[in-house]
Amino acid sequence: MVEVPVPGAAATPTTRPATARVGMVGGGQLARMTHAAAIDLGVDLYVLAVHPDEPAPLAGAVTRLGSPDDLEALRAFAVEVDVVTLDHELVSDEGLAALAASGHPVRPSAAALLYAKDKLHARTELAALGLPVPPFAPVDTVEDVTAFATQHGWPVVCKATRGGYDGRGVEVVHGPDAAAAVLSRGGRWMVEAHVDIAVEVAVVTARRPGGEHVTYPVVETVQQDGQLVELVQPARIAPEVAEQATALGTRVAEAVDGVGIVAVELFIGPDGTITLNELALRPHNSGHATIEAATTSQFHNHLRAVLDWPLGDTSLRTPAAALVNLLGPDGPDRIAERLPAALAVSEAAVHLYGKASRPGRKIGHVTVLGDDAEVALSRAREVADLLVGPGGRSTRSGT
Amino acid sequence: MVEVPVPGAAATPTTRPATARVGMVGGGQLARMTHAAAIDLGVDLYVLAVHPDEPAPLAGAVTRLGSPDDLEALRAFAVEVDVVTLDHELVSDEGLAALAASGHPVRPSAAALLYAKDKLHARTELAALGLPVPPFAPVDTVEDVTAFATQHGWPVVCKATRGGYDGRGVEVVHGPDAAAAVLSRGGRWMVEAHVDIAVEVAVVTARRPGGEHVTYPVVETVQQDGQLVELVQPARIAPEVAEQATALGTRVAEAVDGVGIVAVELFIGPDGTITLNELALRPHNSGHATIEAATTSQFHNHLRAVLDWPLGDTSLRTPAAALVNLLGPDGPDRIAERLPAALAVSEAAVHLYGKASRPGRKIGHVTVLGDDAEVALSRAREVADLLVGPGGRSTRSGT
Repeated sequence: MVEVPVPGAAATPTTRPATARVGMVGGGQLARMTHAAAIDLGVDLYVLAVHPDEPAPLAGAVTRLGSPDDLEALRAFAVEVDVVTLDHELVSDEGLAALAASGHPVRPSAAALLYAKDKLHARTELAALGLPVPPFAPVDTVEDVTAFATQHGWPVVCKATRGGYDGRGVEVVHGPDAAAAVLSRGGRWMVEAHVDIAVEVAVVTARRPGGEHVTYPVVETVQQDGQLVELVQPARIAPEVAEQATALGTRVAEAVDGVGIVAVELFIGPDGTITLNELALRPHNSGHATIEAATTSQFHNHLRAVLDWPLGDTSLRTPAAALVNLLGPDGPDRIAERLPAALAVSEAAVHLYGKASRPGRKIGHVTVLGDDAEVALSRAREVADLLVGPGGRSTRSGT
Repeated sequence: MVEVPVPGAAATPTTRPATARVGMVGGGQLARMTHAAAIDLGVDLYVLAVHPDEPAPLAGAVTRLGSPDDLEALRAFAVEVDVVTLDHELVSDEGLAALAASGHPVRPSAAALLYAKDKLHARTELAALGLPVPPFAPVDTVEDVTAFATQHGWPVVCKATRGGYDGRGVEVVHGPDAAAAVLSRGGRWMVEAHVDIAVEVAVVTARRPGGEHVTYPVVETVQQDGQLVELVQPARIAPEVAEQATALGTRVAEAVDGVGIVAVELFIGPDGTITLNELALRPHNSGHATIEAATTSQFHNHLRAVLDWPLGDTSLRTPAAALVNLLGPDGPDRIAERLPAALAVSEAAVHLYGKASRPGRKIGHVTVLGDDAEVALSRAREVADLLVGPGGRSTRSGT
């Protein structure tokens, strides 16, 4: 039997109230994919976007235009929704205070977000809890860097304490001259010991206000110039290392009192030593494969967590998932023209963000599930190459 | 490393052209779920809806308001998009001709749609091809029905040749008086022999204009008063019966020259005999579990098929999937209030359509994957009961 709307019944309003209204500051691809999850749950996702042509507005999220720096816009946005969350960390402390002053919950809180906004704060606080951060120090001068290097050895890693992303504001520095060049850019900097890395992983946790949380199987990530280019889930690491990584990731989520998705990036050394890298308090690139691979995606769980609803099962429904980011190629992209050929790889799930291409900019991703991680990864790379050319998926530069 | 939009870059337009524009006549839940798939593929889904509060407009599909009976609205809609498709069959022949006259492809074609719109046409044409339809005849009078029953036995099934859906316009008739009552409603009727049914199944195929097609594993459906209430995929039937059903479903898709999703409902008798029931030329309730259960959902494949793009893998990534429809309860529904408790069943995927509740109206569905169909079905029923009460999921009536 077929199901069709009755034309005669169309005169009757057919709408029902949304199950909830969630406001997300920022209209990028994270908000776009959160919107797709919101559709399932009958949740209206409102986004505060700068332009109507950002990824989430293009996908049909309820859009309010305004800058995340405009306190009035933030306040007006907050009162429309049940809870405010964010697709990026670039909201000023004043902005977060304005949101909180609306009387509506802001999740994560400003205090939690500070761990993602300020690397020196994160290192200092997490070190005080005895968590395994690399040796670090705030630096003002080349002499500070050199003194640190004398103790820990060159190279060192210079990091802008605020405003870095996708590897920007992070520089491996091999001597005083390079340190001087970095510091001359201005802003506040810190320095860290260079860590030997065998593999990088991420632990993605969804956490409710009361502390209830669920954690996804550990993700193995491949970074290039500080930007995630591909991943495999679950990570191909020893079970005891995965267990330690999971315990550390969830401990960090708790320590920062994160609500929503908390993604914790970890370095695993050649001897299995785990060191904390960065963290994010929102859906994260390392969790994108959960859309197809997990019973509940990180986007569904982010919504459920910020709404203080029970969290969904994070089990993988496949032995292995692989994901390759689509980065804008050097020349003009030809995504629309190339998409049909790429879809001929019939087991791939292609996600396009609606973003104009720039060299190295993340414009989408490809996920392949399978019994074998290497096979899945090789198929996902094949699709990425068909879409953006072999240069595209690994080229480095802007967002 | 975190990924965030650069506020400074916001002054630069960031949009890219859609990979394609697909127009869907109708703004119901099928269009809503097609929109979610369109987001992944960078496709803009345009819907021609009667009201802005229908399920697909609420989810953010590009919405044009207009009646499917308004030839001018249909023409104007068609010229905006690359291809026109439909979420229901209630477009008049004149309307389909107006769409075709726009010069843009209409997929499926009016000729194919006639198989879903006109049951007598479908029976006549498919019988002529030797396909296993039940004995049938057009009827104008009670005497016609009685003559048919004399040959095939009471009861018989009276069907409105056009306009039926979800069991409406289909009546099991046990004698001449009941036949008279049915015919007195007016409209054209046909009669069919009553078929002994052990199990009902559906075969969902996606087919491109050139005939290339992919078929999902057979779906076992449970109907109540002609409306699908729950399903299990793959169907728990003998492999050779599944093979025959699949062959028949794909043969019907080919015979009607369907493009997009073609869902073919079949009766399987106690002796394994397969008989054709109805067909639909659009995404169908029997395919909804493919969102979670299959590598490529029916909604992705419908878009790919009508765009003449390569089709996606239809394999299931789970041993078993179960789905239970959410039907509006007799009293007021309390979905928003009940949703959190229902989500505590952490492995369930809840889909809400944004439709106001009326008794028996399909307002959403719940899918659970698992190793065992019976366990998955029992969990899905549990969630449905939590959302709409034990009466709700099985109550029968409107759309």
